[in-house]
Amino acid sequence: MSIKNTQQSAAKIMQWADKLANFSAMPDGLLRAYLTPEHKLAHQQLADWMEQAGLITWEDSVGNQWGRKESPNPTMPTLLIGSHSDTVANAGKYDGNLGVLLALEAMFQLQGEALPFHVDIVAFADEEGTRFNTTLIGSSAVAGCFQPDWLAIEDAQGISMAQAMRDFGLDPELAGKDQKNTDDTLAYLEVHIEQGPVLEDQDLPVGVVTGIAGAKRYQFKLKGMAGHAGTVPLALRKDAMSGAAQMICHIEKFAFENQIVATVGRCEVFPAAVNVIAGEVHFTVDIRSQSQSTLERCCEQLLKDLNHISEQRQLQLSHEKLYEAEAVLCDDSLQKQWGEIVKHHTQKTPCFLSSGAGHDAMVMTNITNIAMLFVRCEKGISHNPREQVIESDVAVALDCLVDMIKKLSK
Amino acid sequence: MSIKNTQQSAAKIMQWADKLANFSAMPDGLLRAYLTPEHKLAHQQLADWMEQAGLITWEDSVGNQWGRKESPNPTMPTLLIGSHSDTVANAGKYDGNLGVLLALEAMFQLQGEALPFHVDIVAFADEEGTRFNTTLIGSSAVAGCFQPDWLAIEDAQGISMAQAMRDFGLDPELAGKDQKNTDDTLAYLEVHIEQGPVLEDQDLPVGVVTGIAGAKRYQFKLKGMAGHAGTVPLALRKDAMSGAAQMICHIEKFAFENQIVATVGRCEVFPAAVNVIAGEVHFTVDIRSQSQSTLERCCEQLLKDLNHISEQRQLQLSHEKLYEAEAVLCDDSLQKQWGEIVKHHTQKTPCFLSSGAGHDAMVMTNITNIAMLFVRCEKGISHNPREQVIESDVAVALDCLVDMIKKLSK
Repeated sequence: MSIKNTQQSAAKIMQWADKLANFSAMPDGLLRAYLTPEHKLAHQQLADWMEQAGLITWEDSVGNQWGRKESPNPTMPTLLIGSHSDTVANAGKYDGNLGVLLALEAMFQLQGEALPFHVDIVAFADEEGTRFNTTLIGSSAVAGCFQPDWLAIEDAQGISMAQAMRDFGLDPELAGKDQKNTDDTLAYLEVHIEQGPVLEDQDLPVGVVTGIAGAKRYQFKLKGMAGHAGTVPLALRKDAMSGAAQMICHIEKFAFENQIVATVGRCEVFPAAVNVIAGEVHFTVDIRSQSQSTLERCCEQLLKDLNHISEQRQLQLSHEKLYEAEAVLCDDSLQKQWGEIVKHHTQKTPCFLSSGAGHDAMVMTNITNIAMLFVRCEKGISHNPREQVIESDVAVALDCLVDMIKKLSK
Repeated sequence: MSIKNTQQSAAKIMQWADKLANFSAMPDGLLRAYLTPEHKLAHQQLADWMEQAGLITWEDSVGNQWGRKESPNPTMPTLLIGSHSDTVANAGKYDGNLGVLLALEAMFQLQGEALPFHVDIVAFADEEGTRFNTTLIGSSAVAGCFQPDWLAIEDAQGISMAQAMRDFGLDPELAGKDQKNTDDTLAYLEVHIEQGPVLEDQDLPVGVVTGIAGAKRYQFKLKGMAGHAGTVPLALRKDAMSGAAQMICHIEKFAFENQIVATVGRCEVFPAAVNVIAGEVHFTVDIRSQSQSTLERCCEQLLKDLNHISEQRQLQLSHEKLYEAEAVLCDDSLQKQWGEIVKHHTQKTPCFLSSGAGHDAMVMTNITNIAMLFVRCEKGISHNPREQVIESDVAVALDCLVDMIKKLSK
């Protein structure tokens, strides 16, 4: 395809993204939650466009929107390409949706070409978990991970997921029963905005994802002894704030040394008076690594280190695990192919980077090999109306995706 | 006086403290605020006891309770001895009140003895500032520092100090007009519980106060950049929490090195989500030193150091001063005399220690030399119903105070 055509396609994708963003529950911002009228309307729009691209369309058991390009050979497996169409509150227009629209435009590009496999493109109806607080509902259903007990979860208005499905026109009894199978599936490809600053920092339009980091989150409670800020000499203090500060400094240093990310996002001090030594500090730690073994080793070591600091200071430290998700890896061979394609289209050494955020691909790894491509986004800002991508980067991403499909067909 | 007699006197002081604690606005705890019925009743009780000790009693223009032991020589100056009788909410029984009761019992001990100076013992009616949020009202009036604009300050019920004075039977027009003069005053002595752990740590019943620390308090605001805890690599972060932690560690190290105390009592993180890098952290610093010049130098240096850390991390730091009080020194000669007396009564090397907390003596320094003696209190706990002193320590403090009065009369 000519450069001019790709640019026109990228412009079309940007217009589609603007149009999709109108299907929103917020008058002055974007919010599209699972099983809402906005979900229905956005998916009807996607289905229209899919049909214009010559695809066979359907809605699955949990409300994901599909479009199929059939291979002349009906016995061949299916290549899955997609991302999610739902959003957080006050969202940007590209998180998830860009990946769906790139898959759609790739189908327009390949219209009329016979491929040696079927291609199913998909808009997952829930990745963010905005409505029911449980994430990745759409891809979980496809990957055979839908949990029937989710049907009882209620939204903020007290409506259960089962009821919301019925209101949407779905049968909750069937939820997840139309899952895909490993044998029939070739791979899952997903293009997504980076939601981080690495590609911008390296001045690259796209990057090859190596995997999705595993994460663990902890809540720590550090107890010392409150006291008078004037009358207790430093040597006799059990200052929980100073202890927590030492721990937070250590966490940062430890993360650098071990090439992981670790974040203290919350920190609360008690009793929180300007002239009272902190008697207790509560703080959270979010730790992620591309390597599950590194994550396990780092968490174990860090817990030891923090306990050591606590003992040295005669403080009492306790913790509970709030959350954990295992690391998943993108397929090596597919990464290598992305790398060659990206190098060809950018004329630069490709950037291979890990995803610190979760994606539908994380769940799809249960049934097939996954491969992801990241698109640069401005300042790494996401989950925010200021989320932005550059049209020429979208053009590069489209070229790469189309080339990947062609490569797989050889 | 015999050891037995001193022990009996100490037991009496403990009983008086229990009795005074009944004059409270709280049914199950101690709260005695300025210009309240409890203040009136407690001072009437003190006046009764003072009269039993042969003192001439009166209430001054702001409601302080006085008792005078006149010298046979009417032209001689007056030795002032006292502390405060008001309390914080849910207070202990000894903060302030112990010093008043020790002065009272010293007058019982010296009843019948002719001294070459008058002795005025005083129960200051407000030191804590519990009701009107401005502290040291009682001693300020005596030391000529009463500010007429305080009369307009309202309590939580909207009652002005002027109205509260009228309700109490005082004339606000006269507030502070009966101040003491430097020429007529020999010195001001105050015995007070330590409210810190130093004496307990050194296993000493009493200690000689060298001065009252100066203090400055700051509010810091540290701005970074919020971001996704998974997608922003450490090297690209502007993490306000990590920056604040480095600063808090530095503050502690700096305080140790400079032999001052510094306390970070409050720390708030924004947006305070487990998976979001802190975009902003607010924290307070309370810094105190016995030496005003050390305090000034340390504050200047610390502000430079914190700004340097902020610049290194590409964060933005701003601060405002919340409060400051100048350091005051106890009289050298009186300290030396306390030292000799304490050594005699404890048979141990006396401990000279600075007061990190404010006291009435701080204001009295405006008109006369001051001297303070600290009494050990359990675990340094104060402003708390668990505040406790040992009866035998009270006996030592009484011996020391009586000896000091006798020494001054020689």
